[in-house]
Amino acid sequence: MSTIRIDMNSDLGESFSSWVMGDDAAVLQSVSSANVACGFHAGDPQVMRKTVALCKGGNVAVGAHVSYPDLQGFGRRNMGCSADEVYTDCLYQIGALQAFCAVQGLTLQHVKPHGVLYNQAAKDKVLAEAIAAAVKDAGSGLILMGLPNTESEKAALAAGVTFASEGFADRAYMKDGSLMPRSQAGSVIHDVAEVARRVVQMVTKGTVIAGDGTEVAFKPDTICLHGDTKEAVEMAAAVRKALEAEGVVITPLKEILAK
Amino acid sequence: MSTIRIDMNSDLGESFSSWVMGDDAAVLQSVSSANVACGFHAGDPQVMRKTVALCKGGNVAVGAHVSYPDLQGFGRRNMGCSADEVYTDCLYQIGALQAFCAVQGLTLQHVKPHGVLYNQAAKDKVLAEAIAAAVKDAGSGLILMGLPNTESEKAALAAGVTFASEGFADRAYMKDGSLMPRSQAGSVIHDVAEVARRVVQMVTKGTVIAGDGTEVAFKPDTICLHGDTKEAVEMAAAVRKALEAEGVVITPLKEILAK
Amino acid sequence: MSTIRIDMNSDLGESFSSWVMGDDAAVLQSVSSANVACGFHAGDPQVMRKTVALCKGGNVAVGAHVSYPDLQGFGRRNMGCSADEVYTDCLYQIGALQAFCAVQGLTLQHVKPHGVLYNQAAKDKVLAEAIAAAVKDAGSGLILMGLPNTESEKAALAAGVTFASEGFADRAYMKDGSLMPRSQAGSVIHDVAEVARRVVQMVTKGTVIAGDGTEVAFKPDTICLHGDTKEAVEMAAAVRKALEAEGVVITPLKEILAK
Amino acid sequence: MSTIRIDMNSDLGESFSSWVMGDDAAVLQSVSSANVACGFHAGDPQVMRKTVALCKGGNVAVGAHVSYPDLQGFGRRNMGCSADEVYTDCLYQIGALQAFCAVQGLTLQHVKPHGVLYNQAAKDKVLAEAIAAAVKDAGSGLILMGLPNTESEKAALAAGVTFASEGFADRAYMKDGSLMPRSQAGSVIHDVAEVARRVVQMVTKGTVIAGDGTEVAFKPDTICLHGDTKEAVEMAAAVRKALEAEGVVITPLKEILAK
Repeated sequence: MSTIRIDMNSDLGESFSSWVMGDDAAVLQSVSSANVACGFHAGDPQVMRKTVALCKGGNVAVGAHVSYPDLQGFGRRNMGCSADEVYTDCLYQIGALQAFCAVQGLTLQHVKPHGVLYNQAAKDKVLAEAIAAAVKDAGSGLILMGLPNTESEKAALAAGVTFASEGFADRAYMKDGSLMPRSQAGSVIHDVAEVARRVVQMVTKGTVIAGDGTEVAFKPDTICLHGDTKEAVEMAAAVRKALEAEGVVITPLKEILAK
Repeated sequence: MSTIRIDMNSDLGESFSSWVMGDDAAVLQSVSSANVACGFHAGDPQVMRKTVALCKGGNVAVGAHVSYPDLQGFGRRNMGCSADEVYTDCLYQIGALQAFCAVQGLTLQHVKPHGVLYNQAAKDKVLAEAIAAAVKDAGSGLILMGLPNTESEKAALAAGVTFASEGFADRAYMKDGSLMPRSQAGSVIHDVAEVARRVVQMVTKGTVIAGDGTEVAFKPDTICLHGDTKEAVEMAAAVRKALEAEGVVITPLKEILAK
Repeated sequence: MSTIRIDMNSDLGESFSSWVMGDDAAVLQSVSSANVACGFHAGDPQVMRKTVALCKGGNVAVGAHVSYPDLQGFGRRNMGCSADEVYTDCLYQIGALQAFCAVQGLTLQHVKPHGVLYNQAAKDKVLAEAIAAAVKDAGSGLILMGLPNTESEKAALAAGVTFASEGFADRAYMKDGSLMPRSQAGSVIHDVAEVARRVVQMVTKGTVIAGDGTEVAFKPDTICLHGDTKEAVEMAAAVRKALEAEGVVITPLKEILAK
Repeated sequence: MSTIRIDMNSDLGESFSSWVMGDDAAVLQSVSSANVACGFHAGDPQVMRKTVALCKGGNVAVGAHVSYPDLQGFGRRNMGCSADEVYTDCLYQIGALQAFCAVQGLTLQHVKPHGVLYNQAAKDKVLAEAIAAAVKDAGSGLILMGLPNTESEKAALAAGVTFASEGFADRAYMKDGSLMPRSQAGSVIHDVAEVARRVVQMVTKGTVIAGDGTEVAFKPDTICLHGDTKEAVEMAAAVRKALEAEGVVITPLKEILAK
């Protein structure tokens, strides 16, 4: 029987200037891939450089957490940018982060849109194509991380970009495999043991119990763990421990999604 | 008798958002290397992308015009950044521009500090070393452009970075080969024919007539032409014409300064 | 027969840092009210201070041209800000400009939303109310400038804020008095004499010839003249000359819209 | 015997976007004046509005904590701005904060330069005069807070601006009444009881024990308490308690420094 492997990812490097966000060093103990802010919603060159060095030290693969240019809104406001602007802004951010990876002898692994851009890319074909084009043009082998069965995935496939399906550790799912909207009660799961059980099921069995109780197919390539709260750090550790107890190997995306 | 070759450079891509600066298309007709703003003192991702495409179309080599993070002061205010911040900010900017070069199939040729950073790098050893380290770390073969016989040049040599000595077409020089301070009368030469004659002398004879009338050795690798005024466009064209009349070949730095 | 009075307004102070936009000194010769950028889409403290001083010298009333925080998009991108953010950002900008007015012994006359915020305020009740509330809260007597017969006007009236109906000198109108969308052919009128004739008709007769040829009632309190092109400066002068030839007095809004 | 009154001030509103700094609600329990960031080194319009509302609720007077425009450096980098730029940037920030005060029915009480600007204003006559001029021009009655016996104080007096001498609760002093440089051992006092004793001595006796053991005259108008650490909150509370135990009344500057 072959070993099951999964990637665990978290958002890192979201400090800015004198403001600290999250406990990156703690989160790094649990994940295998980091989505590093590139200065548009968080992060600044100093934070980026230090975060990449931290990732190298922890054998965590680095990805670019690209965003709308909106520090004041933390990338959570729809900017109404054109597809051309999104494409260009993504390239700028990816390039900047690549420079810090190169200094460390690392190769950038993936790109993940941040905040509202992530959600829009799932629904908006034109935006999804702009992001996929930037990932494609930024260099060979970059993986695009996104919601499965969405415009993001379609655009990646059409562009010849490797796509990593992302599952959320603490989110409830609908019968069709989509995320339960945050507006619905029960959309976010807070019980650590329950979260760990659900992730183990996704990873080892390829299913999830949807909000209506039905068991539906759901097999992500990477599991997203939040990293900006104390609880989140504990949750990440618990999920990792539960997976390892089942013999699952936590390893960066690039080792799972060979082209 | 071998052909004399020289690089002519100018600052390009200094527009920002809806604000246009300079006539890049016109300047591109005369120069062989462009110093492209990277969003810290001017330029934005859109402007950078378009400028790099323009450079490719004109067979002009691309360099990163790195600056303090100071859009409001156009990079002309001393920021009091630490050497560590300067190193990091340079890497960020270089990486961002490299992404746009990669999309066009171009390799970034050089780095030139902008504004007050350029002047400080000539005098401040620690700052000069920070910039040279960033150029070194950003990738093999990048050339650092700066004032000859300064801390910039020393730092480049110490770091194993190829240094390009820059001469200014319209500036007067002192007996020791340094720039005449702008505070002195006659420090900037406005007569186009006189400027062209002086550049031809620098390039073909390796000397310049200093402010006190003496002829001193001065042999730059690249000649800086300003690009943000109508007069400057004419001056660049006149200098190029005068050089070509003497059989000088205008060609990018990388073809002159083989490692 | 009483004298007809009208306000002419234009966007001023849209330079930023080293970038110049428009010929403010020339435009000031023709208008009676200036919409001064407050640093969010254009302008910076230096530009604001100088623009207010210029307005004082030209006896032109000062208004705050409030915008989304989007220098890179020049305030022309929908930011998806909440009504609360819009209210707060408006107050910030109004206060900053008031400081420069106070130094000159001037009182801020009006507020005009810029770019996409102007258009959204016409259609979006919640946004319009947020802007009207900021104008109300910023101090007694501030006038809100906007499109007539829209959510902007309704919100101003509901908040007890004096509203100034704006007409556009060079735009075509629909039968219902709304602006012809820019996507339609003929929506922008370029012929200076035609523009001047139309403005005279609006001001002296209170009507406009709509796109379908019908003459409809349209009586603005202020006429908007663009200021960022050479043609615009000539157009503003021509409109003023034509109005004055009919005995119309060009005077700031505050002298027309007494509370 | 008359009641002794003293002002206690702290820096508030230094959060930005999604980043939280300090525990403003806790600090407000102890101080009588707040130095509110104005968006240049920290704070944004939302944070400013909420902070002013918080101050009103706590009967704490509001001051503008003006800074160089340097979010990325938190206002701690020398920006090399001209005196004209400093004057103008101060007015912009003061005006913006005044708008939020006006909404709450409050009058801005004072201005305090932040970070490196505070230190430079103490030594640089031209910069000090620029700041004093901005405080003067921004409106009648604004108090300028600064280091006693410095260029700041001289400039305030020369400009006819009321000056508030500031003492630092946890800092050691030299024999001449100046701050012991942070580079010297013992320059920062960490023992809460010791800090409280020293403040009581300053306020009730008008002296401080200098680093060399001599007792020197030192009678500040306001005592600065840091607010961005857990320890600082406890220290502020301890200082207040110690002062009140001596019958000292903690009250805003404006009630102490009547013009």
